[in-house]
Amino acid sequence: MAYIELNNALPGITGLLENRTDTAAPIRELTQILLRGESTLTELERELIATLVSYGNECRFCTSAHAATVIALGGSEEMLDKVFQDLDHAPVSEKMRALLTIAAKVQRLGKEVKDSDIDRAKAAGATDTEIHDTVLIAALFCLYNRYVDGLGTYRPEDPAYYQRLASRLVTIGYGRPKEGVRNGEEAFK
Amino acid sequence: MAYIELNNALPGITGLLENRTDTAAPIRELTQILLRGESTLTELERELIATLVSYGNECRFCTSAHAATVIALGGSEEMLDKVFQDLDHAPVSEKMRALLTIAAKVQRLGKEVKDSDIDRAKAAGATDTEIHDTVLIAALFCLYNRYVDGLGTYRPEDPAYYQRLASRLVTIGYGRPKEGVRNGEEAFK
Repeated sequence: MAYIELNNALPGITGLLENRTDTAAPIRELTQILLRGESTLTELERELIATLVSYGNECRFCTSAHAATVIALGGSEEMLDKVFQDLDHAPVSEKMRALLTIAAKVQRLGKEVKDSDIDRAKAAGATDTEIHDTVLIAALFCLYNRYVDGLGTYRPEDPAYYQRLASRLVTIGYGRPKEGVRNGEEAFK
Repeated sequence: MAYIELNNALPGITGLLENRTDTAAPIRELTQILLRGESTLTELERELIATLVSYGNECRFCTSAHAATVIALGGSEEMLDKVFQDLDHAPVSEKMRALLTIAAKVQRLGKEVKDSDIDRAKAAGATDTEIHDTVLIAALFCLYNRYVDGLGTYRPEDPAYYQRLASRLVTIGYGRPKEGVRNGEEAFK
């Protein structure tokens, strides 16, 4: 159970967002714009950034949720393993390798990003907007990962839970379901 | 100059927020709720959390801006020095020392926060909402610090700049000025 009393028994970020809908609304909105809004990066590419950052921050709930989303969007376990462990040989475009390198640096500390990282991304065809969105997605998941783990939220072990969550993130996105999350998903104790 | 082309010459976060008003709106809204909304933590206490996290993330723009805001709200350089260097003896309440300890851990990694940190805060009188807001403010400034530094934004050296920015954050808050920031503040090259 989380370090604070929540008004629901939902796990991870879902319980936090339902517990405080005033702060949840702008968090959801920002995520929807960045991960599902118009972009020259695919949803899979943007979810890969979110997953790599969550992995770097050792946030198991977010890593499991977004890894499942990457797979639901056509990615694979093998792709994820390479992105986590051997980015330079991951089966993604050179542009994505450069953007994921930037995201991994942002995860550690903003000032780790250097001119040479940006030059590499631009040489591989990344636009200013793609670089912007990569940095802001990485920064946003540094928020999420710390929110989820800093409050000690509950993390289900069952992979099927993350597959169901991923299915919702792919089909509905990051907005709040009209009846609230509690009516759309099972609760965990 | 920033790593990407912006539509303005404003420094630090101010230039980023004016450059992308769609993503800026929810970031501003979340910040306004957490740092200026109703709370049993004072604005000074909440700005202290923001400043300590920015300092931990080595984000000089945000540290300067929020340190100036702490001082504008009645804090002091001495208070800030103690909070940065010797938190256990900082001239703040035991509750705030416990909350700032949690914030410093969230800044490093969410999972560094342990039951004992939460127990200490609760024993000192911190409510669940205060603990929640401390964690989310710390997480939010992990976003800000990485956004500002990950895109290599311009950082003014002149302390007077941060005093003017702090004055705006104290009197107006974190919303977007009606005419946009560009008409309210000087631009930097």
